[in-house]
Amino acid sequence: MTKDPLVIFTPSGKRGRVPLGTPVLTAARQLGVDLDSVCGGRGICSRCQVTPAFGSFPKHGVTVSESALSEWNGVEQRYDDIRGLPSGRRLGCQARIQGDMVIDVPPESQVHRQVVRKRAEARDIVMNPAVRLFYVEVAQPDMHDPSGDLERLRDALATQWDLPDVHIDLPVLNDMQPILRKGGWQVTCAVHFGDAAAPARIMRIWPGFHEGPIFGLAVDLGSTTIAGHLCDLQTGAVVASSGIMNPQIRFGEDLMSRVSYSMMNAGGAAEMTAAVREGMNALFRQVAQEAGIETTDILDAVFVCNPVMHHLFLGIDPFELGQAPFALASSDAMNLMARDLDLTALPPAARVYLLPCIAGHVGADAAAVALSEAPDKSEDLVLVVDVGTNAEILLGNKDKVLACSSPTGPAFEGAQISSGQRAAPGAIERVEIDEVTKEPRFKVIGSDLWSSEDGFQDSIATTGITGICGSGIIELVAEMRLAGLVDGSGLIGSAAQTGSDRCIVEGRTNSYLVWDGSGHGGPRITVTNRDIREIQMAKAALYSGARLLMDKFDVDKVDRVVLAGAFGAHISPKHAMVLGMIPDAPLDKVTSAGNAAGTGARIALLNRDARAEIEATVRAIHKIETAIEPRFQEHFVNASAIPNSVEPFPILNSLVTLPELSFNQPSGAGEASGGRRKRRRG
Amino acid sequence: MTKDPLVIFTPSGKRGRVPLGTPVLTAARQLGVDLDSVCGGRGICSRCQVTPAFGSFPKHGVTVSESALSEWNGVEQRYDDIRGLPSGRRLGCQARIQGDMVIDVPPESQVHRQVVRKRAEARDIVMNPAVRLFYVEVAQPDMHDPSGDLERLRDALATQWDLPDVHIDLPVLNDMQPILRKGGWQVTCAVHFGDAAAPARIMRIWPGFHEGPIFGLAVDLGSTTIAGHLCDLQTGAVVASSGIMNPQIRFGEDLMSRVSYSMMNAGGAAEMTAAVREGMNALFRQVAQEAGIETTDILDAVFVCNPVMHHLFLGIDPFELGQAPFALASSDAMNLMARDLDLTALPPAARVYLLPCIAGHVGADAAAVALSEAPDKSEDLVLVVDVGTNAEILLGNKDKVLACSSPTGPAFEGAQISSGQRAAPGAIERVEIDEVTKEPRFKVIGSDLWSSEDGFQDSIATTGITGICGSGIIELVAEMRLAGLVDGSGLIGSAAQTGSDRCIVEGRTNSYLVWDGSGHGGPRITVTNRDIREIQMAKAALYSGARLLMDKFDVDKVDRVVLAGAFGAHISPKHAMVLGMIPDAPLDKVTSAGNAAGTGARIALLNRDARAEIEATVRAIHKIETAIEPRFQEHFVNASAIPNSVEPFPILNSLVTLPELSFNQPSGAGEASGGRRKRRRG
Repeated sequence: MTKDPLVIFTPSGKRGRVPLGTPVLTAARQLGVDLDSVCGGRGICSRCQVTPAFGSFPKHGVTVSESALSEWNGVEQRYDDIRGLPSGRRLGCQARIQGDMVIDVPPESQVHRQVVRKRAEARDIVMNPAVRLFYVEVAQPDMHDPSGDLERLRDALATQWDLPDVHIDLPVLNDMQPILRKGGWQVTCAVHFGDAAAPARIMRIWPGFHEGPIFGLAVDLGSTTIAGHLCDLQTGAVVASSGIMNPQIRFGEDLMSRVSYSMMNAGGAAEMTAAVREGMNALFRQVAQEAGIETTDILDAVFVCNPVMHHLFLGIDPFELGQAPFALASSDAMNLMARDLDLTALPPAARVYLLPCIAGHVGADAAAVALSEAPDKSEDLVLVVDVGTNAEILLGNKDKVLACSSPTGPAFEGAQISSGQRAAPGAIERVEIDEVTKEPRFKVIGSDLWSSEDGFQDSIATTGITGICGSGIIELVAEMRLAGLVDGSGLIGSAAQTGSDRCIVEGRTNSYLVWDGSGHGGPRITVTNRDIREIQMAKAALYSGARLLMDKFDVDKVDRVVLAGAFGAHISPKHAMVLGMIPDAPLDKVTSAGNAAGTGARIALLNRDARAEIEATVRAIHKIETAIEPRFQEHFVNASAIPNSVEPFPILNSLVTLPELSFNQPSGAGEASGGRRKRRRG
Repeated sequence: MTKDPLVIFTPSGKRGRVPLGTPVLTAARQLGVDLDSVCGGRGICSRCQVTPAFGSFPKHGVTVSESALSEWNGVEQRYDDIRGLPSGRRLGCQARIQGDMVIDVPPESQVHRQVVRKRAEARDIVMNPAVRLFYVEVAQPDMHDPSGDLERLRDALATQWDLPDVHIDLPVLNDMQPILRKGGWQVTCAVHFGDAAAPARIMRIWPGFHEGPIFGLAVDLGSTTIAGHLCDLQTGAVVASSGIMNPQIRFGEDLMSRVSYSMMNAGGAAEMTAAVREGMNALFRQVAQEAGIETTDILDAVFVCNPVMHHLFLGIDPFELGQAPFALASSDAMNLMARDLDLTALPPAARVYLLPCIAGHVGADAAAVALSEAPDKSEDLVLVVDVGTNAEILLGNKDKVLACSSPTGPAFEGAQISSGQRAAPGAIERVEIDEVTKEPRFKVIGSDLWSSEDGFQDSIATTGITGICGSGIIELVAEMRLAGLVDGSGLIGSAAQTGSDRCIVEGRTNSYLVWDGSGHGGPRITVTNRDIREIQMAKAALYSGARLLMDKFDVDKVDRVVLAGAFGAHISPKHAMVLGMIPDAPLDKVTSAGNAAGTGARIALLNRDARAEIEATVRAIHKIETAIEPRFQEHFVNASAIPNSVEPFPILNSLVTLPELSFNQPSGAGEASGGRRKRRRG
């Protein structure tokens, strides 16, 4: 008796013997190899394409002859005639194993294919969406053995796909009978795989074979903007992205003013709920139109947001979030349907998943950052900071993760800064100040040239120079500190103290003139001492939150810092460290994760295991409430100095020299007291 | 060391030793004794009332001293002061065991108390509703360990009630936070226990302790009428019952005309769906008003109905049920919410349960009959017949149950009978015909007197004699057969053949004059030969369905017959057997189950285990489709004779003598051919 043929799958390396004549797809399933199929091996979908390899493979210990795979059969030939098979490819469900074989499964034939992310340090996304398509052939009704059409469809899913207990949405059931008959008892089902509280359910049915595409939405619901990313649920590709302003802005710019609105106005919370849902619907239609698809093909949606937005989106009055003890109605992840949230742009049965919240001030957006940046999987100690009007801060490694939030306020977004503005063309975003001349040069959004370079004026002719954006103000203040224009306490020196006539007296304090556009019909752009104070408050809040977590972790330094958020992407690590925004760390260990919350939403959309994973992670995260931690105030006061009145920042000090001076003026103005040592070494 | 005290609970007889000072409620839980509590042992709800017994109990081998139970404590005293404890009663959660004890748990203190049914042969209903109340004390939010209010409420249910994984409906979550605070972190939750696809969920919350009542609806959705029974979900009592005409009647009197309406009119099915749901809402408001309760306290509802009504109620076009192979969209039981079915009279989160259908012609109503009459638990072979326009027939015992339906048509409801009418005052419901004089006497609904008795005319003065109802026509035809007025083939003899001048010629056949009201301003009530034919068709359909199941069971007789349905309650077993409606059986073994479908709905409402049970039973029932069974036609033809052309009916023949005669008239009319043997013995 000859042995059964040996089959080796690459790249998995899985191997085993299968009976002569076994189809490749069957062999793959038996050996646990990830080989896709929507049609269940009927030669329709071509998802099971494989590349057989022939010749000698000493590594695998086999020699594969041309006859080791069956010749093309009629099904394969017809598929090739009509739709074309790439050269060298075979349909795994049709090609049969007739001898020892080496078979490669290309990435696009894997269900759990990887979606490669651009950043080297980020893990790849493995596809495992909550909604998948299954083609089935359903037994016809038989009066000798009467049973419901649904029960026979369920039987088909159980026997043909090993899906034993699939339920159905009532609206799908309502339309099911004509679809079964139109498809000649062959249909494709979109099945949603829920959690323990929502087992697998048929959420849509198409007559015959339907290969897709089907889509999902990853939505980052921010206080200011709502961003939606439309993803192909089979390939993982982002097919369109779009954003709108959060329509709730008319009820209040920031979260607390919205909470106040709901407190002061009966029905105010409901108004805001309706507004954000309407906004969502507009966004969904917009992003679908952009991608040229029907919203009816959007079957899943994942939402991340801060706790106040989370409650308002769900229809919960955020009242309790506006006062201690900041009790969330619920912190757990939510599995809902589009109809539950009046998301009328989506099919009523489209599934909705909200990531869990971490605490009353640390929301599902922070959970999404944790999912994307995975501090709980990090070997080294990583500080992850999502910079916004509230900073969410995570500190941890694979042993433990801590989380808190800190109220940075809107200064980092250019708000409450005298010449501040949102990041838009015309905004100053990069700054250098000459340490000797104290003269600035800068770049504005919309031009690649420094203001000192030839052609700069032409390059900004259409935009002008309109203000300073968030990253610009950080660099400006840091450069002023480095150039000796601002002291460690945050005071701007006078012209006499600094030797720069750009330092001008405004009231009882000084300002620094960055750009005088008044001759060009533009604004006069200065940094006032009040602006410095705003930045000091914001960065002190951020730093002291991080420092509090370091206390709790019992460490004095972190191995690396990840800046998340759109703003984080534009921050210069050196300047952030000069300001004392973030703990001392090697500059190359301070990286930007971009929109990590949005990425986390996308991960949860594309991989349902990631949902269970982040739910477990969030339960394990230790939450710190800064408001009740006595050391927070102390850290805050210390961190108000630039960079800090007690922390040594040794790495920073090895890179730059921070002038030791004080512009403190006990009485009168204009008197120099440069050189006074203010910093204490801790 | 002295032994722990021995405690014996009656009536369960459960006994065991518990540590000195154990509260009775705790002891009951430890020993598996069914003792109710809503407040969880806080002395608020008094559901755990027990009756301690003192003295010598040789049967139990203990003597109980007065000091064996602790004295009244403050909680118990306060409860008695405010609400009063019946004499001899104690609160199980407060009274502590201090010595050997005998403790009686009265029925009203048992969660799984029995709801006694009136019929001796019917099993009692044991309370185990799908919705129950739980009082909990919830931990307050703590900034040192932030968690959501819901998560702390879930923890409370898990630790205080051993309910480990309770979810919540979103609308309940939306209102939860103020209720928790209003109740001072003490709330009562209504928890719905679903099936595998719907785990336990909080569906309503009240601040503080809420003892109920809460209600459920058992609804029998018939083609003609919709009957709703409002039940107390804690006691099982029916607090109100009400009925309305099914508003779908305007689309067609019988089921097939409604199916036709949906086929002939685009949107017709949706119109009928809307009509029946509107009708439901009207009924629910009506029954709630009758009981003087708010519909918001109705938290659960169970529906039984035939397959066409089932589909139309769910919003499924019944098209497929109108033609072979009569494929149901789904036969499985349905767990839904009131909002899914636009039952706006109920809270949106009220649960809806539909019993499973057995086959395309044997619906959830037949399943409910099976639940009520439990043929699957019967030691002897029982035939259960639910008589309506379609007869659903079950035959079985604990080994096997078979089911079929047979199209009896509406004759048994008095329709299509020349003098037929619904059962209402004035309708003839009982008949006797003298075998010698051939004179009838009868009773009409509304009077207790026979028409031959003194005072009869006075007793019907207000109602008159208006027609013949279903049970009346059955007795009439059977009596005519016994009196020799009708032969075995169903022909009415002429006056000459019968010797009765009540036999009058009408066209080519004879009629029998039952009552001539024309002199009294009333109708002339006759039985025409066409009426006889209608009854023959109906009873033949019923009998042949039953006989087919007997074939499949390989038996020639059944041990007992249960007649279900309102009509079944009024049928005389002897007359039904003379007609050959039902198989030969001892008369005392032919019983009426009343509205068994409604009772089945009530059982499923009050006991959620009964739902799982009937789902399993229905899966096991073997369905027979009469339309494709070759012997059905043969049985039908045989059963057209009165009582039957081949079946011997030995028990019937031992009770009555059926004249052997034939009024067949090969040519001409009026010629006697009495005495011709027509019946063959099988």
